[in-house]
Amino acid sequence: MIKKVDHIGIAVNNLQTALEFYEGILGIKCTGQERVEEQKVTTAFLPLGDTELELLESTDPTGPVARFIEKRGEGLHHIALQVDNIEAVLEKMKAAGVRLLDETPRGGAGGTKIAFLHPKASGGVLLELTERP
Amino acid sequence: MIKKVDHIGIAVNNLQTALEFYEGILGIKCTGQERVEEQKVTTAFLPLGDTELELLESTDPTGPVARFIEKRGEGLHHIALQVDNIEAVLEKMKAAGVRLLDETPRGGAGGTKIAFLHPKASGGVLLELTERP
Repeated sequence: MIKKVDHIGIAVNNLQTALEFYEGILGIKCTGQERVEEQKVTTAFLPLGDTELELLESTDPTGPVARFIEKRGEGLHHIALQVDNIEAVLEKMKAAGVRLLDETPRGGAGGTKIAFLHPKASGGVLLELTERP
Repeated sequence: MIKKVDHIGIAVNNLQTALEFYEGILGIKCTGQERVEEQKVTTAFLPLGDTELELLESTDPTGPVARFIEKRGEGLHHIALQVDNIEAVLEKMKAAGVRLLDETPRGGAGGTKIAFLHPKASGGVLLELTERP
């Protein structure tokens, strides 16, 4: 059901500063950036093995990443797990009584379909399900 | 320099409860557990693609995972990046002025050599460097 870790989302105050460390010092190449209006973030993609780091800078002080940083500071924000059929997985989660933040998928970066589970379901981890096009 | 994400460390109150979700509901198979005295944790390993989830339950209320949970609750604790030569990478980090929690490597689970960077260096993320034997 779960294929792999699609990406690891990291909330940062400033993409440029974060890239100076992740790309400049660690040498993990950034392959692109994308503004995702629905999430109110600009995302920088850094593939690493069969997964990738995604640095997230908020575009709006009311967005989820801005609120996360205000509450907890910069840092690890979520893990995305790649699935083949997100609707089927969501149905399975509902049947198992797992608390969901998204009952139906919505649009993510790169034409993906995504849905978040409630952190209470997963030991405090904000988990995203991702289906790639 | 960085080969891949070696693992994602998740701090949990109780391994059995966490495994009911990650293994029982998500279907990610747990391949083993190990008690790591130096970190004061018992770790459960759940390989996924070319990386793995590591669930961390503290064995001691003074340990780093117990203190993390006390302060922030359960959740994402650290990311480990796999390297070939941890001493060489630590030298490079020092030369670049990166703040380190471990100036020299110490022992981790499964015979690894590990060292933590200071979260201030990396946008609030606790990063571990891991060299596999």
